[in-house]
Amino acid sequence: MHEFQIINKYFLKLSNNNKSSLNLSDDVFFDKSKKLVVSVDTYVEGVHFINFENPELVIKKIIRSSISDLICKGVKPKYYFISGSGNNKSFSSSNLKKISKSLKQEQMKYNIYLCGGDTVFSNKLSFTITSLGFSKEIIYRNCAKLNDDIYVTGNLGESFTGLKILKKKINVNNYLKKYFVNKYYLPNLHLKLTNKLFSFANTSIDISDGLISDLEKLINKQRLSYKLNLDNIPISKNLKKLLYQKKLNKISYVSQGDDYQILFTANCSKSRIINKTAKSLGIKISKIGKICSNQQKSQIIDQKGKKIALKEKGYYHKF
Amino acid sequence: MHEFQIINKYFLKLSNNNKSSLNLSDDVFFDKSKKLVVSVDTYVEGVHFINFENPELVIKKIIRSSISDLICKGVKPKYYFISGSGNNKSFSSSNLKKISKSLKQEQMKYNIYLCGGDTVFSNKLSFTITSLGFSKEIIYRNCAKLNDDIYVTGNLGESFTGLKILKKKINVNNYLKKYFVNKYYLPNLHLKLTNKLFSFANTSIDISDGLISDLEKLINKQRLSYKLNLDNIPISKNLKKLLYQKKLNKISYVSQGDDYQILFTANCSKSRIINKTAKSLGIKISKIGKICSNQQKSQIIDQKGKKIALKEKGYYHKF
Repeated sequence: MHEFQIINKYFLKLSNNNKSSLNLSDDVFFDKSKKLVVSVDTYVEGVHFINFENPELVIKKIIRSSISDLICKGVKPKYYFISGSGNNKSFSSSNLKKISKSLKQEQMKYNIYLCGGDTVFSNKLSFTITSLGFSKEIIYRNCAKLNDDIYVTGNLGESFTGLKILKKKINVNNYLKKYFVNKYYLPNLHLKLTNKLFSFANTSIDISDGLISDLEKLINKQRLSYKLNLDNIPISKNLKKLLYQKKLNKISYVSQGDDYQILFTANCSKSRIINKTAKSLGIKISKIGKICSNQQKSQIIDQKGKKIALKEKGYYHKF
Repeated sequence: MHEFQIINKYFLKLSNNNKSSLNLSDDVFFDKSKKLVVSVDTYVEGVHFINFENPELVIKKIIRSSISDLICKGVKPKYYFISGSGNNKSFSSSNLKKISKSLKQEQMKYNIYLCGGDTVFSNKLSFTITSLGFSKEIIYRNCAKLNDDIYVTGNLGESFTGLKILKKKINVNNYLKKYFVNKYYLPNLHLKLTNKLFSFANTSIDISDGLISDLEKLINKQRLSYKLNLDNIPISKNLKKLLYQKKLNKISYVSQGDDYQILFTANCSKSRIINKTAKSLGIKISKIGKICSNQQKSQIIDQKGKKIALKEKGYYHKF
């Protein structure tokens, strides 16, 4: 069973009378009267991060992944709680020192504070991060409008490439290894864009499970479809070169998730302000497609207008 | 290293500039300006609950353990988030149905709502519960006054007895087995007492790690000591009988924790209002000792004034 099916079948009814939970189907919990926004996520070794050989990097990755849920909804994170389960190897003095140092750096970078948590003994390493922010409003899922443009920040596919390199499934030179592994561990969040999103985004999500998977989640309660232009999906020069050299499929690299870029839709009249904002903040924002009516099927097309087939839409937790 | 040492050595500095975190040394996080109270706890199979043979009971135990942190500080819980890591056996359809049913029942009992969470795959079963409430004020730790009386709600030692029975370390008849195992899984929280605590309690904590261990935590930043009267520590008739029959040590049963009763101190002038409140709410509240100056050592004495030795003060997570 997918985690979404589990939520719908067993847990949705537990929040039904409570608007703030957004039917458990948005990235965050939002109590409008209290202006409170909360995100809770669990990260397990071997599932969400490859191993704990680099605790200083893993910690940064999971903190960013957690606060990304708030940032993509237009909310600046303020507090976080970290609850770690692990053994004395994972939580050795040396590792704890690295964890603490990394948290300090993330706190400085994103202006957040540690507020509590828990440390418990377990032979399986995992962390649960609870992130909190305060905001009068958030950008919801399922608020796209027909004919909206679809935008994404930054570049996609780099984290997945880093993971493949770490798993030794792709061989690259040391320069590229460092580049992509860095992207795997240190997603680039756009904190400065947070508040600006309200000026143009109708609906938004961060890309954790994959471009297509998250795009479908973004509009899954609407009678809409999407049309994406493969060529417009942003990738870095390094990834472009790698895909070319190794004859790899672009779509299967940009749709694997773990990107933590912001995916949003906006009315086409917003195109100028979006470009202006992108330029003034120095953030890459790319128009990658359009929201269409559900009379046509969702599709990804290449330069010549040919439909692209997609084997896997992204990552789902299956039970 | 104890979890408290870990917090002090590696994490305290990350919250130093932030009053709301209460130096990570209280049961909850409290943002006074936002009136927000948060508690985050992780529960691991084999550590915090014996196994998952009775998911419907385990879920109730961990929800109560989590919201107990708020209730003991005078705060009514409002929202909770549950993040579960487990495999397809733990999260089978049958178990999910039981989990969902149990959560529903707890929601009704404590007037709380599920607001989100996460479900991830892991071969080690664990849950992280984040509980939230809103309150203008909370009752802090380390606010005892010299000569305060020490009080505790309910009975102690029953959960630990239940655990011993489940572990087959004590043999009892079916009636007592059912009684104590029930106490192990279903701690009796005193939601009705929550707001009343402000009228008399100077400082408070819930008993999770053990009476002595938690009492010491309650005043560990104060230059104070305590004197407890063993005979006044409340136990049920069933436990009294069991201790007598099996020739077991009272102190080693009442100090093992997992009781989720409220431990608080109050000025001796409050004794009448405390008794009145206890009576009107139908909640047992026992005076078990006194807060003393640190010129004398903390002690537990029996009926004859003889000092009682204590082998273990309670439960600590060691790494």
